[in-house]
Formats: sequence, C-alpha cells, structure tokens
Amino acid sequence: MFSDKHKTAGVAYPQGFTAAGVRAGIKKNGNLDVALIYTEREAAVAGVFTQNLVAAAPVHLSKIVVGTGTAHAIVANAGCANACTGEQGVHDAEQMAQVAADALGCRQDDVIVASTGLIGSYLPMDKMTAGIKDAAQKLSRDGSVNAGNAIVTTDTYSKACATEVTIGGKEVRFGAIAKGSGMIRPDMATMLCFITTDADIDQKLLQEALSDATEVSFNMITVDGDESTNDSVVVLANGAAGNKKIVAKDADYEKFSETLKTICVEMAKRIAADGEGATKFITVNVTGAKSFEDAKRVGMSVANSPLVKTAFFGQDANPGRTICAVGYSGVEIVPAKVVIKFGGLTVYEKGLVTQFDADAMKKVLAEHDIIVDIELGLGEAQATVFTCDLSFQYIKINADYTT
Amino acid sequence: MFSDKHKTAGVAYPQGFTAAGVRAGIKKNGNLDVALIYTEREAAVAGVFTQNLVAAAPVHLSKIVVGTGTAHAIVANAGCANACTGEQGVHDAEQMAQVAADALGCRQDDVIVASTGLIGSYLPMDKMTAGIKDAAQKLSRDGSVNAGNAIVTTDTYSKACATEVTIGGKEVRFGAIAKGSGMIRPDMATMLCFITTDADIDQKLLQEALSDATEVSFNMITVDGDESTNDSVVVLANGAAGNKKIVAKDADYEKFSETLKTICVEMAKRIAADGEGATKFITVNVTGAKSFEDAKRVGMSVANSPLVKTAFFGQDANPGRTICAVGYSGVEIVPAKVVIKFGGLTVYEKGLVTQFDADAMKKVLAEHDIIVDIELGLGEAQATVFTCDLSFQYIKINADYTT
Repeated sequence: MFSDKHKTAGVAYPQGFTAAGVRAGIKKNGNLDVALIYTEREAAVAGVFTQNLVAAAPVHLSKIVVGTGTAHAIVANAGCANACTGEQGVHDAEQMAQVAADALGCRQDDVIVASTGLIGSYLPMDKMTAGIKDAAQKLSRDGSVNAGNAIVTTDTYSKACATEVTIGGKEVRFGAIAKGSGMIRPDMATMLCFITTDADIDQKLLQEALSDATEVSFNMITVDGDESTNDSVVVLANGAAGNKKIVAKDADYEKFSETLKTICVEMAKRIAADGEGATKFITVNVTGAKSFEDAKRVGMSVANSPLVKTAFFGQDANPGRTICAVGYSGVEIVPAKVVIKFGGLTVYEKGLVTQFDADAMKKVLAEHDIIVDIELGLGEAQATVFTCDLSFQYIKINADYTT
Repeated sequence: MFSDKHKTAGVAYPQGFTAAGVRAGIKKNGNLDVALIYTEREAAVAGVFTQNLVAAAPVHLSKIVVGTGTAHAIVANAGCANACTGEQGVHDAEQMAQVAADALGCRQDDVIVASTGLIGSYLPMDKMTAGIKDAAQKLSRDGSVNAGNAIVTTDTYSKACATEVTIGGKEVRFGAIAKGSGMIRPDMATMLCFITTDADIDQKLLQEALSDATEVSFNMITVDGDESTNDSVVVLANGAAGNKKIVAKDADYEKFSETLKTICVEMAKRIAADGEGATKFITVNVTGAKSFEDAKRVGMSVANSPLVKTAFFGQDANPGRTICAVGYSGVEIVPAKVVIKFGGLTVYEKGLVTQFDADAMKKVLAEHDIIVDIELGLGEAQATVFTCDLSFQYIKINADYTT
C-alpha cells in the first residue's frame, strides 16, 4: 500500500503541505533537531496525547490548539522533552509556537508544539528560535525526510509513509512521520506521530477517526512498559483535495477512517519493530477472548514480560514464560483451553508445554519477525499487540542516556 | 537481629527440626538440587502461594496439605518447576510427597511439595526418588545450608536467617531459607521461602500472621514484573518451644507475628537485592498517599520501570524517569505536590526536576544500596517497595536459560 516514492514525500505528499528539518544544536550529536510542518490553507486538527499525569508543557499547549479545531503548523524538536520544567517550560513551549507563528504569518494558537528527549531540562531557546526561523525558510515539498530525521532520538531510522485513496471521486492523500523508541507502551509513549492529509473533513469526525485508529495502533504497542510524558499523535486535514467535505459517518468517512487506521497501524508497527535495542519484531495475536479488553490485557502481559522478551532475543524456545505471562495477566483464563503457537508451531495446549520440532522452531526463532498466537478458547474477541525483544543494547542505551 | 551463627542453623535452628540438601542430578550443573525439611513432632502449617492462574502442580498439592492444617515435612527441588506438565505433573508431585512420606514415616498429605526451575519439563522421577531417599538419610541439625543451596536457581547466594524471641517466658526460635531471583514481583514470584518455628500456635492464627507478613514483604518486591507459576511461602510451627499455645490475638501473638514479619521482610529484601543480574538494591519509600494501595501502586510503577532500573544500573541521575513512572502509575497524583529524593538529595519538587549537587549525587549513585523517597503530599498512607537495577547480566541470564 505504501510505495517508496511516496514515503520520502511523507507529510508533504498531501496537497498544500510543506515540511523542513534543520540543525539547531539542541541534540548533542549535532544531528537535525527542529522540524516544521506547514499548510497555508487552514487545516482541521485532531490529536491524541499521553495519559501520563506528568504531561510535558508542549502537550498541554497542543491540547489547547486541538481545542480550537484548526491549525496551520506543527513545530517539533528532539533532544529535550521540555517535561518537568514548570512555568518556564510552559513559557518556552508558547515561545516555540509564537516564533513559528511569526515566521509563518499565522497565530500562536495555530501551531501544534511537540518535544521529545531528556526529561527535566530546559529548552535552549536561543538555539530553538534560530532553528525555527531557519526551518520556516526551508519549508518545501521535499522537506519531509529532514523533518522526520529531526524528531528521532534513539530511533535507528526515521519512520515515514504516504498513500492516497479515492474519496468521492477525488484523490485524497495522506502522509506521516513518526518516532519511537523507548518509553513505548499504551496509553501512548515517547512517541510522536504527525499525519497530514488533504482530505476535507469535519473536525469532530477527524478527532473520532484518529481516536479510533489510535486504539488499535499506537495503544497496542509496547517496548518497555514505560509511558512517556510527551506522546502525541496529531493529524492535520487541510481540505486541498477538494473532496466533498466529510460531515457524516457515510461511505466516505469509512474510507477515510480505514485509511487513517492503516497508516496508524503501519507506523505503530514500525515503532515497535524499532524499539530500543530491538533485534526482533514480535506480533502477539490473542484470539478467543471474552472481550477486546481481555484480549489486549493478555497480549500486553506477554508483550511486556522481560522474560518472554529476553527469551526471543536469545532465540530460545521458552513457551513456559509465555503461558506464565498469560496466567498472571489478570484475565480469568482457563489454562486447559489455551493454545499457544510460535510461528505457527504449537508450543502449549491442554495445559501442557508440547513437544515441537526443534529444527522447525529454530528457524522460526531465527527470523526477524515472530508471530505469537494465543487462543484463549473463551469467546470471539481478539486483539493484536506489537512489541520487540529485550536485548543488551536496550540496557546500554538506557544506562547511559543523560551522560 | 539475625546473628550469623544462627543463620547457618537456618530452618534447623528451631527445636525439633532437621534439614538436608543433596545432589540428585536434576540441575544440569550437578549442584545440590533436592531439599528436605522435617519435624517429627507434628507442626501447624500455613502457606501463601502464587496467584498465577497457571500454577504449577506442586502448588496445587501443597494447598491441599495446608488445608489439612498440619504437616511434618517439606520436600523441594530446583532445576525443574514441574509447571505446565498436566496430569503427569500432578502425579509426579504426589509421588515426591509419597516417597518423602515413606522415607520419613508420615502420610503423603503431611508433606509440602515445591519445585522451581524451568517451566514445561517433566521431573526426572528416578533421580528425584533416589534424591529424596538420600536426603531423608542425611537429615540433621546442620543440614539447613545444604537445603538452602538445593533450592537456588540463578540466585548468586542462598538466603537464610534465624532468630529467637521470648514468648510467654519461653525461648521461641525461627529459621528460614529462601530463593529468588527472576520472575519476582507480587503477587509472589519464582520464589520459595520455607520458615520453621518451634512456637506453639493455632493454625488459623499462623495462617493469618503469615498472610499479613507476606503483604508487607514478599508482595512488596519486584525484580522484573514477572509472576511465576511456583511461588510458595510455607511456615511450619511444631510447638517444641513449649510456650503456652497462642490461641488469641494477645501480646504473645503480636510478638510472634512481628517476628514472623521481620523475617519475611528480611528475606524479601535479600531476594530483591539478589535479583537476576542486580548490581544495586533499591528501596522505594512512598509516603503521603491516600491509601496503602495507592502508595504501593506508585512504588511498584517506579520499581518496575525498565528505564528507572537501567538508569540506576548506569549510575545515571535521571529523575525525569522516576517522576514519569509516578505519573503513569494510575494513581491520581498532583505533580506539583510530589517531592522525590535519591539518597536524601531532592531531585524533583514543585513540578520541576531540581538542580542538585552533582558530586553528592555521584556518591549516592555509586552506593550498592539506594533509597528513593517519593512524597505524594496527598495523605498519611505509606508503602515501601524493594527492587534492584536492570543490567546486562539480566539479559544474559534470561536469553540463555533453557539452552
């Protein structure tokens, strides 16, 4: 669905959007660190933000912008999260928006603000101001790659995608950039995802579509069970595609929201696959649950288990740890009804760890992508959780982060 | 309180108890792997077991023994957990009890059974039978050290303690052995703790005292958030001390239960300190909560955060991760009221990560024992959670466990 030529176009693939990423000197390593996304045409805006009670200053500010219903720009930085920074932090986030607004000729409350990086440090506002002005000069249809690189922290690559779909006879485009990669779990994570679309859609429906998409995408991934202070998913819809405005839950809305969901799931999977230190991408499919919530809870229990994750890192078939994590999930499972498969090979059923073909299992565990199927045998509901393994590199990255 | 000469006496320190630990060939490394604890005089028995719905066969059996109210022996092995082993596993656990009962001259339902090690493998019953018979021959007042060593898995040392207290004018003795050290978290873990006492106490009061002690000890530790299928804490009280039998919640009961609690907390702390790959012992004191449950939830959220744990491993002052974990704990905290200290140095207050003396912090983080104080400013309740850091060694141990 996501062709590579569109991927580089990213958030500037939809009509009317431009983007830029510049070096402002906020990241210690001198990499790109300030991103700007812009639409001259006013866009409907929707957002989903961290549930962490210690939310960062930019999150509070961006919620206000979403509350106005419209926006023209997103300004973001990596290298400093502007979290736990009190009134100074709020002032700095407002200043980021104001500088962008001045450079772009819009109002402060037209600008979504996002920051990611170290918690508890103040933004270097002189560098930030210069960086935002520089980015505003460099906005272009080719700027998405730089914007994507400017928001990454410990990610090993920038996540981007773009696609189009026909809605009401018009080509409607979507683009997205995102970053992970520690502190990833529901509800939301050290995760930023910016989505643009030239669809014309009512703001309330846009918010509903985004919230629904988040439930089955970003809220279904976990890297380490930590939930960050800064997570934000924001979508801008500027209407440049010229489709008949979507104002009801009709076929056009379905098509729009399905596409948005596909993009969110795709970006969520890439974030999980690029979890800090990850060597494996693990999909946990839970079926036969009494409810989606139960299925998700079982999936998360398995996906968050350090013992399960280290076993996959070691390419070690240890189904006991998986059924163990199912057992303590808090869901009323019946062990004898549970069937667990790794890569299609049954490893647990009828209350027993089963004998499996060791050579076939070796092949399954040697793959980068591993599928864990857990059938609970209790109902019809299902959920899919995405995660990665837990490696030496995770420890290394996180033992040395501030220093 | 726990003198070293008593520590080696361990579970055989109380009058009337003997113990042994032997090599039966169940552990691949050839170490001691079958433990036996015995009291000829019938003992009141109490137990607390894993809440994991996938509980191991020996757990089911031992619950039945506790249900009878009395016991004469505990037989335990390491190297194989006898979990997820179905009917064969139940039969094997019963057989362990029967072999011990035959060797000791008691009934099968007088014998508590416990296993720890790999999930999903069957016990080698020929080796087990020979080992139990051998252990029965070797029972002695000096056998606790061997018994303690026979139940460890990835523990770096065996945990033991012993003490005495005067109850109703009589010296009453207590002894304990325990093992950790992965899959450690509430409610209970890959954790075995066997406590003996020569106190004379009503079985129902014994159970109540043990349950209360477990709440503030074993249920307050976490190594990796995983909860095992085999956790068991069992206490045998054989009455050999000759104290007036404790049958009501009087001063004698208070003294008994306080001592039991002290032992349980001491053993729990040692298990947390010896968590897999641990280089730090971390005490998380949460005060000013509205309830014990809230305080515990905040403490566990911090203690289970891989980002907090890796930061302490790296001796990296990263208070942002701690307040972040407080924020997503699910407890309704007020960030501006929270005060966080590492080793007595304030690192977060009034919504801000504070400036702290870097040299003083370096000293705090270089210590093996680190105290994290979290004041919530919302009430009077408090809780203390014990944990360790997350190191390369944890990954190494758990990536290679079965192979």
